[in-house]
Amino acid sequence: MTFFSFELLHSSKKSKARVGRIHTPHGIIDTPGFVGVGTNATMKTIDTIAVEKTGLQLMFCNTYHLMLQPGTELIKEAGGLHKFMNRKQPIITDSGGFQVFSLAYGSVADELKSRGTKKQDKMVLKISEEGVWFRSYRDGSKLHLTAETSIQAQKDLGADIILCFDELPPYHIAEKSLQSSLDRTHRWEERSLQEHLKNPNNQALYAIIHGGIDPLLRRVSCEFLTARPFDGYAVGGSLGKNKQEMYQMLSYTLPQLPPEKPNHLLGIGDLESLALCVPLGVDTFDSSYPTRSARHGILLTKQGPLNITKACYAKAFTPIEEGCSCSTCQNFSAGYLHHLFKAKEAICMTLASVHNLHFMVEHMKEYREKILMDEI
Amino acid sequence: MTFFSFELLHSSKKSKARVGRIHTPHGIIDTPGFVGVGTNATMKTIDTIAVEKTGLQLMFCNTYHLMLQPGTELIKEAGGLHKFMNRKQPIITDSGGFQVFSLAYGSVADELKSRGTKKQDKMVLKISEEGVWFRSYRDGSKLHLTAETSIQAQKDLGADIILCFDELPPYHIAEKSLQSSLDRTHRWEERSLQEHLKNPNNQALYAIIHGGIDPLLRRVSCEFLTARPFDGYAVGGSLGKNKQEMYQMLSYTLPQLPPEKPNHLLGIGDLESLALCVPLGVDTFDSSYPTRSARHGILLTKQGPLNITKACYAKAFTPIEEGCSCSTCQNFSAGYLHHLFKAKEAICMTLASVHNLHFMVEHMKEYREKILMDEI
Repeated sequence: MTFFSFELLHSSKKSKARVGRIHTPHGIIDTPGFVGVGTNATMKTIDTIAVEKTGLQLMFCNTYHLMLQPGTELIKEAGGLHKFMNRKQPIITDSGGFQVFSLAYGSVADELKSRGTKKQDKMVLKISEEGVWFRSYRDGSKLHLTAETSIQAQKDLGADIILCFDELPPYHIAEKSLQSSLDRTHRWEERSLQEHLKNPNNQALYAIIHGGIDPLLRRVSCEFLTARPFDGYAVGGSLGKNKQEMYQMLSYTLPQLPPEKPNHLLGIGDLESLALCVPLGVDTFDSSYPTRSARHGILLTKQGPLNITKACYAKAFTPIEEGCSCSTCQNFSAGYLHHLFKAKEAICMTLASVHNLHFMVEHMKEYREKILMDEI
Repeated sequence: MTFFSFELLHSSKKSKARVGRIHTPHGIIDTPGFVGVGTNATMKTIDTIAVEKTGLQLMFCNTYHLMLQPGTELIKEAGGLHKFMNRKQPIITDSGGFQVFSLAYGSVADELKSRGTKKQDKMVLKISEEGVWFRSYRDGSKLHLTAETSIQAQKDLGADIILCFDELPPYHIAEKSLQSSLDRTHRWEERSLQEHLKNPNNQALYAIIHGGIDPLLRRVSCEFLTARPFDGYAVGGSLGKNKQEMYQMLSYTLPQLPPEKPNHLLGIGDLESLALCVPLGVDTFDSSYPTRSARHGILLTKQGPLNITKACYAKAFTPIEEGCSCSTCQNFSAGYLHHLFKAKEAICMTLASVHNLHFMVEHMKEYREKILMDEI
């Protein structure tokens, strides 16, 4: 496959960290790399062109949201997601399953706060071997998501990297149920692969390794999925109830993935997790952490995150971070941002998000430099 | 005065419309020109740099809001409003009076909807010959706004054009009260001028012509104020309860202003009003109309305003307006904007506001071209 390949540039002598390059039809993704979340075909409060200027190499869009609004067929008609949103760089989409099953079981966070695993019957109508029936929150219409319809939807979107349809089981699932969920997920992933191979369409398909925090099930999942010709491997499912559990799970899971293929850690990208997981050899991380933080006035700096709404920044007439080359720091002072937050001017969220996204891009560059020098 | 001057380039043979250039320390303002409203030291949802790219030549910031947040002393410390918000082009500020008196009497719109003219006692504490005492809605502190403190606040801000302190009387004021309000406003404007002349600071001071819709009082106001060395004249106070009343008032008021000085129409800038008032010889117009409309999905085009949230735009994969050179139309389709509005992504407001602001800039350019050819 010439349209998609992974080039391993360096493996650290100090850890399992590695530096590589994913080649896609829309350009290169340097790894380890941060993946911005652009759920509705835009990152929140930043337009496509401003995102491009931050240097972000890969954006994650959500098939579930795009199925409901504006519809994947419409995006196909527009010429695909890249053209629709005018993004020239790589895009990755998920299967839509994650959001549907979050509706069904609630998120892991909800669950751990004892909000239970109640099925939201109004939204999710039926889960079967075939797939899942759910109701559109927009117009109440019934929608069927299966391995085949998910892959077709992702063909319509035309992202560079697409993901297999899988089930996201609840964290507190019984061992036996987790086993049968895993088996069904594997059958769904196999069906996703077959559907994809009918028309690869210059897209790369990543499998999603499941198995919760059970080392045996993770091994089973790695064995099943790495035996098949996927283009890359995402680590999904329950990642544990805290960073320690996630770290342990990744420690035994990642070494079972083929080193010549890229891997992705789903939904994780805060600074602490990056520091833990880069040395384990994770290639790409997606997270809404930098943009969500920005909207709450939390700005990332080399000295750590700061809360720009604090009174101490009112008279800070210098940039958020001296030497930062983002368009926010090049043009505006921390004091001005503080004022915009205090005055509740929405543009504060854009300026803060641009800074944080640029910070993540630079942060990953530094990781790559350190790995190349075997410092990590 | 070399730092501020008005150059009259052409007077139409067909109407009283005129084309000119206002020279300021921060560059030229072509007239007739549209003035964007940037209340809190930013236009809503557009950052300073993006505003600059639309070609907007003059921005209107509100002293009342900036007094309360972040404080005009702080902006002075930051090096003035231009530096604080990183705007390189001209800025105009008002006296703060308009907002204080809107609190006291309610807006004209409120009044005409019979919400009365009740004084909001909690906010406005006292109005006297000296000025007005009011309470900060931010921290409850008592603030005193007088001709002198308003001019001082505007010196702190350092805009290119500043406005006299005036009273905004209610529309339904008794004739005798309007006369005495006018007299006091004239005394306040005279005091504003004296305070300004102590330290002109490369700022131009505009007087505000009052008198409601009474031709005699407008004449008295013109006579009083044009006899004094103001740099320009704004038309303020009650402009009437509809466009017809405003048109009539301007028809008899504008000819009484010195043609060698620039004039400004306060708070008016919708397309219909521009079409009425440009032929009367108004030089500059400020209004939040294009940005407020944009936030509600109303986009301005040569074919008239359109509502981008309508279903007919879902598959409009061409720009809002073909040939439009704004960054929104250069990069995104009407269909994509429709999607962003439907998906409630805040960036839709930014993209729409940029388009509308750019539209206004171009719209005024066309007016100037037509006036130069005596077509208006």
